Amino acid sequence: MKQTILILGAGRSSGSLINYLGKWTASNNIDLIVADLSIAEAKRKTVEYPHIKTMQLDIQEVEQFEKLIINSTVVVSMLPHSLHPKVAKLCIKHSKHLATASYAKREIMAFNKKAKENGLTFLFELGADPGIDHLSACKIINEIKQQNGVINSFKSFTGALMSIQSEKDNPWKYKFTWNPRNVVTAGQGEMARYRVSDLTYYVPYTRLFNKLWEVEFPDLGIYEAYANRNSLDYIKHYQIDGVPTIIRGTLRRKGFCEAWNALIQLGATENITKITIPEDYSYHDFFLKLTDSHNTFSNKKVFEELINSNFSQETWEKIKFLELNSRKAIGAGTYTAAEILEKVLLDKWKLNPKDKDLLVMYHEVDYTIDNKQNKLTSRMSLEGKDADHTAISDTVGLPLAMGVKLLITGKISQKGVVLPVTPEIYTPILKELNNYGIHFTETNV
Amino acid sequence: MKQTILILGAGRSSGSLINYLGKWTASNNIDLIVADLSIAEAKRKTVEYPHIKTMQLDIQEVEQFEKLIINSTVVVSMLPHSLHPKVAKLCIKHSKHLATASYAKREIMAFNKKAKENGLTFLFELGADPGIDHLSACKIINEIKQQNGVINSFKSFTGALMSIQSEKDNPWKYKFTWNPRNVVTAGQGEMARYRVSDLTYYVPYTRLFNKLWEVEFPDLGIYEAYANRNSLDYIKHYQIDGVPTIIRGTLRRKGFCEAWNALIQLGATENITKITIPEDYSYHDFFLKLTDSHNTFSNKKVFEELINSNFSQETWEKIKFLELNSRKAIGAGTYTAAEILEKVLLDKWKLNPKDKDLLVMYHEVDYTIDNKQNKLTSRMSLEGKDADHTAISDTVGLPLAMGVKLLITGKISQKGVVLPVTPEIYTPILKELNNYGIHFTETNV
Repeated sequence: MKQTILILGAGRSSGSLINYLGKWTASNNIDLIVADLSIAEAKRKTVEYPHIKTMQLDIQEVEQFEKLIINSTVVVSMLPHSLHPKVAKLCIKHSKHLATASYAKREIMAFNKKAKENGLTFLFELGADPGIDHLSACKIINEIKQQNGVINSFKSFTGALMSIQSEKDNPWKYKFTWNPRNVVTAGQGEMARYRVSDLTYYVPYTRLFNKLWEVEFPDLGIYEAYANRNSLDYIKHYQIDGVPTIIRGTLRRKGFCEAWNALIQLGATENITKITIPEDYSYHDFFLKLTDSHNTFSNKKVFEELINSNFSQETWEKIKFLELNSRKAIGAGTYTAAEILEKVLLDKWKLNPKDKDLLVMYHEVDYTIDNKQNKLTSRMSLEGKDADHTAISDTVGLPLAMGVKLLITGKISQKGVVLPVTPEIYTPILKELNNYGIHFTETNV
Repeated sequence: MKQTILILGAGRSSGSLINYLGKWTASNNIDLIVADLSIAEAKRKTVEYPHIKTMQLDIQEVEQFEKLIINSTVVVSMLPHSLHPKVAKLCIKHSKHLATASYAKREIMAFNKKAKENGLTFLFELGADPGIDHLSACKIINEIKQQNGVINSFKSFTGALMSIQSEKDNPWKYKFTWNPRNVVTAGQGEMARYRVSDLTYYVPYTRLFNKLWEVEFPDLGIYEAYANRNSLDYIKHYQIDGVPTIIRGTLRRKGFCEAWNALIQLGATENITKITIPEDYSYHDFFLKLTDSHNTFSNKKVFEELINSNFSQETWEKIKFLELNSRKAIGAGTYTAAEILEKVLLDKWKLNPKDKDLLVMYHEVDYTIDNKQNKLTSRMSLEGKDADHTAISDTVGLPLAMGVKLLITGKISQKGVVLPVTPEIYTPILKELNNYGIHFTETNV
């Protein structure tokens, strides 16, 4: 029987995934279907591959959606993570494998047992971060273990940023290359967690962008990282029980976090309170509601007093750049502050057509072999070609596409919810990523 | 048929309520039942009134709970506000009036129509704050309206604090006289709202204790207020449509809020993340998880750097007073930071047996009559007798008890969810409160 790969979602991050699987399926007699809410977007992304079928996808049309899944061998979901439990449920029902770049959250782990029982592989966290970080971290960790080394410290930082040449026109040195809502509300909810010297630390949202680690990249310069979610989850995934120090973080260009923290303190990322505004309201009118002074965005001292904290001139330049006191109309509606800030940033942090994004990843592992201390660092950076061919699309889409290939050719023996932390997955994918310029430079001291 | 008043809950704030209704029912041939989870507490509170029946109350025992309600004429609930929808539902089912000191939140307003249809009065917000503030504010507002005055500004601040003599042994000048959990998590959730000169302002939690109003009381000194919930709700309740300025706030002794804000920034009030600690953990061990330095609570500079903000020596004294680095054991369990802070404060902010608490309330109304500007201020303060006879118990329990008396004697004509904002309620209650030393001193400039 002919195999069929179903890709759900043809959005921003799906380009490289579709290209890779488009080429591979064409020469391997496998069917490929790309379904998106926008059939035009699906057609645009698949125009070079006449054998790919495109379908209109409406999750609300349950019957049609179920039919799509019934007719596939592997389902690849690029949908928002909140939809994944729904997709996973149908995959269990109709015995289909599932692959995605999203986090295997608690609601996904709930399908682990049933997937195992049905002989299904639910491949999760196989994108950039989470994804390539797992592949490369587990390779390093397993190599050290094979030498009977003991790991004392594991740090891993990743950032979806801009190339040096494309960050110059923006004092934040940051533009949106993926889901803006996730960027604006990053760190809200449970406290971030990390461990140093056997002690677990918790960072509340009020201090998350104030507790930073610095990383230098040759030729690229200095970045800073804030703690990313619960680093301790990865002790189990990476099989480094009892590791005294583990930190996972998100990279930004040095200076970003001080300015972002000022916006948090202002209340501009608050995502609970719905505020209704009339037709004629401008951004100035809206943010005045959060500040109680007309001078907040034109006078550094006023802003500093408002948030009860002093900041650098560089941070002030970043804040002024956003023009939160713009007289442009927002449009009548009900918004949270975070939603309005997102509207501002969608304009100010927009990729220009020729902008090149940059994916940077850094691991640092301290370990002991025969009482000898070692420090291994591993760096990866990948520059995109332009706004349509981004590094984030490559680093999210290529490992996932390669994972789907492994799955459909029977190379993955594990069943249940599977993370790419074992050699049968990371070895072939890391090897093939090399061909696409995605490789790590290791140094060992 | 003999009438029966049912009081649900015999806790900290129920003393004055039970005393007042105990005396009144004894001489008016009305039955009174006091039900509490702790039958001992119910008996202790009613020992002087042999005619009062006491019952064991377990909300989970639905049948027994329903029976209690069926046999009553008016239900008075001193239960936590989260239980009020459950109580209200049963009152609708069995056609009983309901009275409480709690806020008439959205889930309560949902019963308005059904209560009206059934000819029932659900009397809400009749305690100290909300309660006495409504009575006195509406009296002032209605008097100004009767003179054809136009109200330009309404400010109202209330605090449950300590008398000057009892606040001296505590640098916060604050002790718990009511629900500690509500004090620790105050201001979390939706942003607080107020209006100045026709513009509505929103205050996020990160700045709530940094945006303050000052109020002076002769003989008592200076207090500071932070914005309390959504002040704009009271435009409708007080019938002051179009008022350009309205602010409701909560009073603390001057200096309290800067120190409390430092605890918020630290993360000590975070109430989402559950942290599991072993048997041998001390407060020092716990708070170290939030700070990453052993010196946080012994070195002002370290603390200031951690929260990215400088504070006064007075704030530092307040923080040191809490001994967050105490080596005392907490006890194994899973806690949020807010729960641990509450444990600390229950010890540090505990009332001594002879402590006298203090209820302070302040209204300030700017209004115009015949083009003449007026400013009316109205102040109330009430000192408790000791830790068992508190001002908060009097100011919560007495107006509620008087409201129940009005209800049972047929003096309240309004049906549905009713707030004490009309003369038929506030006039007799304010008059009677006078006899208990609860009266307002007005000045008009």
